[in-house]
Amino acid sequence: MESIKVSKKLLNRLPGYLNHLKMLPPEVECVAAPSIARALGLGEVQVRKDLAKISSTGRRRTGRSRAQLIQDIEAYLDLAAETGTVIVGTGKLGCALLDYEGFDEAGLNVVAGFDLNPPVDQAERGKPIYPMGELEDFCRRHNVSIGIIAVPADCAQDVCDTLVSCGVEAIWNFAPLQLRVPDRVIVKNENLALSLTALRIQLKRQEKQA
Amino acid sequence: MESIKVSKKLLNRLPGYLNHLKMLPPEVECVAAPSIARALGLGEVQVRKDLAKISSTGRRRTGRSRAQLIQDIEAYLDLAAETGTVIVGTGKLGCALLDYEGFDEAGLNVVAGFDLNPPVDQAERGKPIYPMGELEDFCRRHNVSIGIIAVPADCAQDVCDTLVSCGVEAIWNFAPLQLRVPDRVIVKNENLALSLTALRIQLKRQEKQA
Repeated sequence: MESIKVSKKLLNRLPGYLNHLKMLPPEVECVAAPSIARALGLGEVQVRKDLAKISSTGRRRTGRSRAQLIQDIEAYLDLAAETGTVIVGTGKLGCALLDYEGFDEAGLNVVAGFDLNPPVDQAERGKPIYPMGELEDFCRRHNVSIGIIAVPADCAQDVCDTLVSCGVEAIWNFAPLQLRVPDRVIVKNENLALSLTALRIQLKRQEKQA
Repeated sequence: MESIKVSKKLLNRLPGYLNHLKMLPPEVECVAAPSIARALGLGEVQVRKDLAKISSTGRRRTGRSRAQLIQDIEAYLDLAAETGTVIVGTGKLGCALLDYEGFDEAGLNVVAGFDLNPPVDQAERGKPIYPMGELEDFCRRHNVSIGIIAVPADCAQDVCDTLVSCGVEAIWNFAPLQLRVPDRVIVKNENLALSLTALRIQLKRQEKQA
Protein backbone atom coordinates (compact mmCIF):
# COMPACT_ATOMS: atom_id res chain seq x y z
CA MET A 1 0.00 0.00 0.00
CA GLU A 2 1.33 3.41 -0.94
CA SER A 3 1.91 5.62 2.02
CA ILE A 4 1.73 9.39 1.69
CA LYS A 5 3.88 11.47 4.00
CA VAL A 6 1.61 13.95 5.73
CA SER A 7 3.08 16.87 7.62
CA LYS A 8 1.41 17.27 10.98
CA LYS A 9 1.89 21.03 10.82
CA LEU A 10 0.17 21.17 7.45
CA LEU A 11 -2.73 19.11 8.81
CA ASN A 12 -3.00 21.61 11.64
CA ARG A 13 -3.20 24.53 9.21
CA LEU A 14 -5.84 22.99 6.95
CA PRO A 15 -8.91 23.72 9.12
CA GLY A 16 -7.86 27.39 9.07
CA TYR A 17 -7.64 27.38 5.26
CA LEU A 18 -11.00 25.63 4.97
CA ASN A 19 -12.61 28.03 7.42
CA HIS A 20 -11.24 31.09 5.63
CA LEU A 21 -12.25 29.83 2.18
CA LYS A 22 -15.76 28.87 3.23
CA MET A 23 -16.43 32.08 5.12
CA LEU A 24 -15.47 34.47 2.29
CA PRO A 25 -18.38 36.39 0.78
CA PRO A 26 -20.19 34.34 -1.90
CA GLU A 27 -19.06 36.64 -4.73
CA VAL A 28 -15.37 35.73 -4.24
CA GLU A 29 -14.48 33.15 -6.91
CA CYS A 30 -10.69 33.28 -6.91
CA VAL A 31 -8.21 33.37 -4.06
CA ALA A 32 -4.49 34.10 -4.06
CA ALA A 33 -1.80 33.14 -1.55
CA PRO A 34 -1.00 36.72 -0.40
CA SER A 35 -4.55 37.50 0.69
CA ILE A 36 -4.90 34.13 2.45
CA ALA A 37 -1.58 34.67 4.21
CA ARG A 38 -2.67 38.13 5.37
CA ALA A 39 -6.05 36.91 6.63
CA LEU A 40 -4.57 33.99 8.58
CA GLY A 41 -1.36 35.64 9.76
CA LEU A 42 0.86 33.15 7.93
CA GLY A 43 3.86 33.67 5.65
CA GLU A 44 3.12 34.01 1.94
CA VAL A 45 5.73 31.41 0.97
CA GLN A 46 4.25 28.99 3.48
CA VAL A 47 0.74 29.38 2.10
CA ARG A 48 1.99 29.01 -1.48
CA LYS A 49 3.79 25.76 -0.59
CA ASP A 50 0.81 24.39 1.33
CA LEU A 51 -1.61 25.09 -1.51
CA ALA A 52 0.74 23.53 -4.06
CA LYS A 53 0.91 20.41 -1.92
CA ILE A 54 -2.81 19.90 -1.47
CA SER A 55 -4.07 21.13 -4.83
CA SER A 56 -2.84 19.92 -8.18
CA THR A 57 -5.15 22.29 -10.02
CA GLY A 58 -3.28 24.92 -12.00
CA ARG A 59 -3.23 28.50 -10.94
CA ARG A 60 -4.93 31.16 -13.01
CA ARG A 61 -3.60 34.70 -13.30
CA THR A 62 -6.22 35.81 -10.78
CA GLY A 63 -5.36 33.09 -8.31
CA ARG A 64 -6.81 29.66 -7.62
CA SER A 65 -10.45 28.72 -7.93
CA ARG A 66 -11.94 28.95 -4.47
CA ALA A 67 -14.44 26.12 -5.04
CA GLN A 68 -11.74 23.83 -6.43
CA LEU A 69 -9.43 24.57 -3.53
CA ILE A 70 -12.14 23.73 -0.98
CA GLN A 71 -12.78 20.48 -2.85
CA ASP A 72 -9.05 19.67 -2.96
CA ILE A 73 -8.57 20.26 0.76
CA GLU A 74 -11.56 18.09 1.61
CA ALA A 75 -10.32 15.36 -0.74
CA TYR A 76 -6.81 15.63 0.72
CA LEU A 77 -8.25 15.15 4.17
CA ASP A 78 -10.36 12.29 2.91
CA LEU A 79 -13.29 13.87 4.65
CA ALA A 80 -15.68 12.02 2.41
CA ALA A 81 -14.64 8.76 4.04
CA GLU A 82 -17.58 6.81 5.40
CA THR A 83 -17.58 7.68 9.04
CA GLY A 84 -20.78 8.45 10.86
CA THR A 85 -21.73 10.91 13.60
CA VAL A 86 -24.57 10.43 16.09
CA ILE A 87 -26.18 12.87 18.50
CA VAL A 88 -27.18 11.76 21.98
CA GLY A 89 -29.85 13.88 23.62
CA THR A 90 -32.60 15.26 21.42
CA GLY A 91 -33.98 18.14 23.40
CA LYS A 92 -34.23 21.47 21.58
CA LEU A 93 -30.48 21.85 21.08
CA GLY A 94 -29.91 18.21 20.08
CA CYS A 95 -32.77 18.33 17.58
CA ALA A 96 -31.53 21.62 16.12
CA LEU A 97 -28.10 20.00 15.60
CA LEU A 98 -29.61 16.79 14.18
CA ASP A 99 -31.58 18.80 11.63
CA TYR A 100 -28.86 21.41 10.95
CA GLU A 101 -28.61 21.66 7.18
CA GLY A 102 -25.07 23.03 7.31
CA PHE A 103 -23.80 19.57 8.35
CA ASP A 104 -25.29 17.93 5.28
CA GLU A 105 -24.06 20.70 3.01
CA ALA A 106 -20.54 20.15 4.34
CA GLY A 107 -20.82 16.42 3.65
CA LEU A 108 -20.76 15.61 7.35
CA ASN A 109 -22.53 12.39 7.95
CA VAL A 110 -24.78 13.06 10.97
CA VAL A 111 -26.93 9.96 10.76
CA ALA A 112 -29.21 9.64 13.78
CA GLY A 113 -30.20 10.90 17.19
CA PHE A 114 -30.59 8.88 20.40
CA ASP A 115 -32.70 9.68 23.41
CA LEU A 116 -34.09 8.00 26.51
CA ASN A 117 -37.54 8.99 25.25
CA PRO A 118 -37.56 9.16 21.47
CA PRO A 119 -40.68 10.75 19.94
CA VAL A 120 -43.40 8.22 19.19
CA ASP A 121 -44.42 9.82 15.91
CA GLN A 122 -41.40 10.36 13.68
CA ALA A 123 -43.34 10.55 10.41
CA GLU A 124 -42.36 14.18 9.80
CA ARG A 125 -38.77 13.86 10.98
CA GLY A 126 -35.91 13.84 8.50
CA LYS A 127 -33.34 11.90 10.50
CA PRO A 128 -34.46 9.18 12.89
CA ILE A 129 -34.27 9.29 16.69
CA TYR A 130 -33.76 5.89 18.35
CA PRO A 131 -33.95 4.78 21.99
CA MET A 132 -30.66 4.72 23.91
CA GLY A 133 -30.74 0.92 24.09
CA GLU A 134 -30.04 0.74 20.37
CA LEU A 135 -26.97 3.00 20.46
CA GLU A 136 -24.29 0.35 20.76
CA ASP A 137 -25.60 -1.88 18.02
CA PHE A 138 -26.16 1.13 15.73
CA CYS A 139 -22.64 2.50 16.24
CA ARG A 140 -21.05 -0.82 15.33
CA ARG A 141 -23.21 -1.34 12.25
CA HIS A 142 -22.78 2.21 10.91
CA ASN A 143 -19.09 2.76 11.62
CA VAL A 144 -19.82 5.68 13.94
CA SER A 145 -16.64 7.41 15.09
CA ILE A 146 -17.96 10.75 16.36
CA GLY A 147 -20.57 11.32 19.05
CA ILE A 148 -22.21 14.64 19.85
CA ILE A 149 -23.39 14.97 23.45
CA ALA A 150 -26.39 17.26 23.96
CA VAL A 151 -27.74 15.98 27.26
CA PRO A 152 -27.83 17.81 30.63
CA ALA A 153 -24.55 17.92 32.57
CA ASP A 154 -25.69 15.38 35.17
CA CYS A 155 -25.94 12.52 32.71
CA ALA A 156 -23.22 13.60 30.24
CA GLN A 157 -20.49 11.41 31.77
CA ASP A 158 -22.68 8.30 31.55
CA VAL A 159 -23.49 9.03 27.91
CA CYS A 160 -19.81 9.66 27.22
CA ASP A 161 -18.84 6.31 28.78
CA THR A 162 -21.45 4.54 26.65
CA LEU A 163 -20.22 6.23 23.46
CA VAL A 164 -16.62 5.30 24.22
CA SER A 165 -17.61 1.69 24.89
CA CYS A 166 -19.38 1.73 21.50
CA GLY A 167 -16.09 2.53 19.78
CA VAL A 168 -16.58 6.28 19.32
CA GLU A 169 -13.19 7.99 18.99
CA ALA A 170 -14.14 11.68 19.14
CA ILE A 171 -16.73 13.53 21.18
CA TRP A 172 -18.21 16.98 20.66
CA ASN A 173 -19.55 17.88 24.07
CA PHE A 174 -22.27 20.52 24.48
CA ALA A 175 -22.85 19.67 28.16
CA PRO A 176 -21.18 22.12 30.58
CA LEU A 177 -18.95 19.48 32.18
CA GLN A 178 -15.37 18.29 31.80
CA LEU A 179 -15.61 14.69 30.59
CA ARG A 180 -13.23 11.93 31.64
CA VAL A 181 -12.17 9.80 28.66
CA PRO A 182 -9.36 7.40 27.77
CA ASP A 183 -6.29 9.10 26.23
CA ARG A 184 -7.08 7.91 22.73
CA VAL A 185 -10.47 9.67 22.66
CA ILE A 186 -10.61 13.29 21.46
CA VAL A 187 -12.98 15.66 23.26
CA LYS A 188 -14.00 19.07 21.94
CA ASN A 189 -16.01 21.11 24.42
CA GLU A 190 -18.66 23.54 23.25
CA ASN A 191 -19.93 25.48 26.19
CA LEU A 192 -22.43 27.94 24.70
CA ALA A 193 -22.94 29.89 27.92
CA LEU A 194 -19.19 30.38 28.28
CA SER A 195 -18.86 31.46 24.65
CA LEU A 196 -21.46 34.15 25.21
CA THR A 197 -19.81 35.11 28.49
CA ALA A 198 -16.46 35.43 26.70
CA LEU A 199 -18.08 37.74 24.14
CA ARG A 200 -19.48 39.89 26.95
CA ILE A 201 -16.06 40.03 28.57
CA GLN A 202 -14.51 41.09 25.28
CA LEU A 203 -17.12 43.82 24.93
CA LYS A 204 -16.52 44.95 28.49
CA ARG A 205 -12.79 45.10 27.87
CA GLN A 206 -13.30 47.23 24.79
CA GLU A 207 -15.54 49.61 26.75
CA LYS A 208 -12.93 49.92 29.51
CA GLN A 209 -10.23 50.70 26.95
CA ALA A 210 -12.37 53.28 25.15
CA MET B 1 -15.70 58.72 39.88
CA GLU B 2 -13.22 56.18 41.10
CA SER B 3 -11.36 54.50 38.30
CA ILE B 4 -10.00 51.00 38.68
CA LYS B 5 -6.87 50.06 36.77
CA VAL B 6 -7.65 46.91 34.84
CA SER B 7 -4.86 44.90 33.28
CA LYS B 8 -5.72 43.90 29.74
CA LYS B 9 -3.76 40.67 30.12
CA LEU B 10 -5.70 39.74 33.22
CA LEU B 11 -8.98 40.43 31.44
CA ASN B 12 -7.80 38.12 28.67
CA ARG B 13 -7.10 35.33 31.16
CA LEU B 14 -10.42 35.60 33.00
CA PRO B 15 -12.58 33.69 30.48
CA GLY B 16 -10.13 30.79 30.81
CA TYR B 17 -10.43 30.81 34.59
CA LEU B 18 -14.22 30.98 34.41
CA ASN B 19 -14.34 28.18 31.86
CA HIS B 20 -12.08 25.95 33.92
CA LEU B 21 -13.95 26.60 37.16
CA LYS B 22 -17.37 26.03 35.63
CA MET B 23 -16.37 22.85 33.80
CA LEU B 24 -14.91 21.06 36.82
CA PRO B 25 -16.90 18.06 38.03
CA PRO B 26 -19.74 19.11 40.37
CA GLU B 27 -18.14 17.43 43.41
CA VAL B 28 -15.15 19.82 43.35
CA GLU B 29 -15.77 22.46 46.03
CA CYS B 30 -12.30 23.90 46.50
CA VAL B 31 -9.65 24.93 44.01
CA ALA B 32 -6.00 25.82 44.50
CA ALA B 33 -3.67 27.86 42.30
CA PRO B 34 -1.30 24.98 41.40
CA SER B 35 -4.03 22.81 39.87
CA ILE B 36 -5.53 25.75 37.96
CA ALA B 37 -2.09 26.68 36.67
CA ARG B 38 -1.46 23.11 35.50
CA ALA B 39 -4.84 22.85 33.77
CA LEU B 40 -4.49 26.15 31.93
CA GLY B 41 -0.75 26.01 31.23
CA LEU B 42 -0.05 29.15 33.25
CA GLY B 43 2.57 29.90 35.90
CA GLU B 44 1.57 29.21 39.49
CA VAL B 45 2.69 32.63 40.72
CA GLN B 46 0.69 34.28 37.94
CA VAL B 47 -2.47 32.42 38.89
CA ARG B 48 -1.98 33.19 42.57
CA LYS B 49 -1.58 36.92 41.80
CA ASP B 50 -4.61 36.94 39.47
CA LEU B 51 -6.85 35.24 42.01
CA ALA B 52 -5.72 37.59 44.78
CA LYS B 53 -6.59 40.57 42.57
CA ILE B 54 -10.10 39.45 41.66
CA SER B 55 -11.15 37.76 44.84
CA SER B 56 -10.97 39.29 48.28
CA THR B 57 -12.31 36.14 49.90
CA GLY B 58 -9.78 34.49 52.17
CA ARG B 59 -8.11 31.26 51.24
CA ARG B 60 -8.78 28.08 53.18
CA ARG B 61 -6.16 25.44 53.80
CA THR B 62 -7.70 23.38 50.99
CA GLY B 63 -7.75 26.30 48.56
CA ARG B 64 -10.39 28.80 47.56
CA SER B 65 -14.12 28.12 47.37
CA ARG B 66 -14.91 27.37 43.75
CA ALA B 67 -18.40 28.87 43.91
CA GLN B 68 -17.12 32.06 45.56
CA LEU B 69 -14.35 32.41 42.98
CA ILE B 70 -16.81 32.10 40.10
CA GLN B 71 -18.98 34.73 41.77
CA ASP B 72 -15.99 37.02 42.33
CA ILE B 73 -14.83 36.78 38.71
CA GLU B 74 -18.31 37.50 37.44
CA ALA B 75 -18.64 40.43 39.83
CA TYR B 76 -15.18 41.69 38.85
CA LEU B 77 -16.24 41.62 35.22
CA ASP B 78 -19.50 43.28 36.15
CA LEU B 79 -21.25 40.66 34.08
CA ALA B 80 -24.44 41.22 35.98
CA ALA B 81 -24.66 44.68 34.42
CA GLU B 82 -27.92 45.26 32.65
CA THR B 83 -27.10 44.54 29.05
CA GLY B 84 -29.42 42.55 26.86
CA THR B 85 -28.88 40.00 24.10
CA VAL B 86 -31.31 39.32 21.26
CA ILE B 87 -31.41 36.49 18.73
CA VAL B 88 -32.36 37.18 15.12
CA GLY B 89 -33.65 34.17 13.21
CA THR B 90 -35.83 31.73 15.09
CA GLY B 91 -35.60 28.57 13.05
CA LYS B 92 -34.65 25.39 14.92
CA LEU B 93 -31.18 26.61 15.90
CA GLY B 94 -32.34 30.13 16.84
CA CYS B 95 -35.18 28.74 18.97
CA ALA B 96 -32.86 26.25 20.66
CA LEU B 97 -30.53 29.13 21.56
CA LEU B 98 -33.41 31.38 22.68
CA ASP B 99 -34.66 28.65 25.02
CA TYR B 100 -31.21 27.41 26.11
CA GLU B 101 -31.37 27.19 29.90
CA GLY B 102 -27.59 27.43 30.24
CA PHE B 103 -27.76 31.13 29.29
CA ASP B 104 -30.20 31.90 32.09
CA GLU B 105 -28.23 29.84 34.59
CA ALA B 106 -25.12 31.85 33.69
CA GLY B 107 -27.03 35.09 34.23
CA LEU B 108 -26.82 35.96 30.54
CA ASN B 109 -29.69 38.17 29.63
CA VAL B 110 -31.04 36.70 26.37
CA VAL B 111 -34.28 38.61 26.24
CA ALA B 112 -36.09 38.00 22.93
CA GLY B 113 -36.02 36.55 19.45
CA PHE B 114 -36.82 38.31 16.19
CA ASP B 115 -38.01 36.79 12.95
CA LEU B 116 -39.57 37.82 9.65
CA ASN B 117 -42.41 35.45 10.51
CA PRO B 118 -42.84 35.18 14.28
CA PRO B 119 -45.16 32.40 15.45
CA VAL B 120 -48.76 33.54 15.80
CA ASP B 121 -49.42 31.56 18.95
CA GLN B 122 -46.77 32.27 21.58
CA ALA B 123 -48.81 31.19 24.58
CA GLU B 124 -46.50 28.28 25.39
CA ARG B 125 -43.24 30.12 24.67
CA GLY B 126 -41.00 31.25 27.49
CA LYS B 127 -39.28 34.15 25.74
CA PRO B 128 -41.12 36.22 23.16
CA ILE B 129 -40.43 36.30 19.41
CA TYR B 130 -41.19 39.62 17.74
CA PRO B 131 -41.36 40.67 14.09
CA MET B 132 -38.18 42.16 12.59
CA GLY B 133 -39.83 45.57 12.29
CA GLU B 134 -39.75 45.92 16.07
CA LEU B 135 -36.03 45.15 16.42
CA GLU B 136 -34.68 48.71 16.40
CA ASP B 137 -37.15 50.09 18.89
CA PHE B 138 -36.69 47.06 21.16
CA CYS B 139 -32.87 47.31 21.15
CA ARG B 140 -32.97 50.96 22.15
CA ARG B 141 -35.52 50.44 24.90
CA HIS B 142 -33.82 47.35 26.39
CA ASN B 143 -30.17 48.44 26.18
CA VAL B 144 -29.30 45.54 23.86
CA SER B 145 -25.58 45.35 23.17
CA ILE B 146 -25.19 41.80 21.83
CA GLY B 147 -26.96 40.27 18.85
CA ILE B 148 -26.95 36.58 17.95
CA ILE B 149 -27.41 35.90 14.23
CA ALA B 150 -29.08 32.57 13.43
CA VAL B 151 -30.41 33.26 9.93
CA PRO B 152 -29.28 31.65 6.65
CA ALA B 153 -26.04 32.99 5.13
CA ASP B 154 -27.79 34.88 2.34
CA CYS B 155 -29.54 37.31 4.67
CA ALA B 156 -26.96 37.39 7.49
CA GLN B 157 -25.22 40.57 6.27
CA ASP B 158 -28.53 42.46 6.10
CA VAL B 159 -29.41 41.35 9.62
CA CYS B 160 -25.93 42.32 10.79
CA ASP B 161 -26.26 45.81 9.27
CA THR B 162 -29.63 46.25 11.01
CA LEU B 163 -28.22 45.14 14.37
CA VAL B 164 -25.27 47.53 14.05
CA SER B 165 -27.59 50.40 13.15
CA CYS B 166 -29.62 49.54 16.29
CA GLY B 167 -26.54 50.13 18.42
CA VAL B 168 -25.46 46.51 18.94
CA GLU B 169 -21.74 46.38 19.75
CA ALA B 170 -21.01 42.65 19.59
CA ILE B 171 -22.32 39.93 17.29
CA TRP B 172 -22.27 36.15 17.73
CA ASN B 173 -22.65 34.88 14.21
CA PHE B 174 -23.94 31.36 13.53
CA ALA B 175 -24.34 31.99 9.77
CA PRO B 176 -21.50 30.54 7.66
CA LEU B 177 -20.41 33.91 6.29
CA GLN B 178 -17.71 36.48 7.08
CA LEU B 179 -19.61 39.60 8.14
CA ARG B 180 -18.51 43.13 7.31
CA VAL B 181 -18.82 45.43 10.34
CA PRO B 182 -17.41 48.76 11.52
CA ASP B 183 -14.13 48.46 13.49
CA ARG B 184 -15.80 49.14 16.82
CA VAL B 185 -18.11 46.11 16.51
CA ILE B 186 -16.87 42.72 17.78
CA VAL B 187 -17.79 39.62 15.76
CA LYS B 188 -17.44 36.07 17.06
CA ASN B 189 -18.06 33.44 14.39
CA GLU B 190 -19.58 30.09 15.30
CA ASN B 191 -19.53 27.89 12.25
CA LEU B 192 -20.92 24.57 13.49
CA ALA B 193 -20.13 22.67 10.28
CA LEU B 194 -16.52 23.82 10.42
CA SER B 195 -16.24 22.88 14.09
CA LEU B 196 -17.37 19.35 13.27
CA THR B 197 -15.05 19.28 10.25
CA ALA B 198 -12.14 20.34 12.46
CA LEU B 199 -12.98 17.49 14.84
CA ARG B 200 -12.96 15.03 11.95
CA ILE B 201 -9.61 16.37 10.78
CA GLN B 202 -8.20 15.98 14.27
CA LEU B 203 -9.46 12.39 14.38
CA LYS B 204 -7.98 11.72 10.95
CA ARG B 205 -4.63 13.13 12.05
CA GLN B 206 -4.63 10.90 15.10
CA GLU B 207 -5.38 7.84 12.98
CA LYS B 208 -2.53 8.70 10.61
CA GLN B 209 -0.14 9.10 13.51
CA ALA B 210 -1.17 5.81 15.12
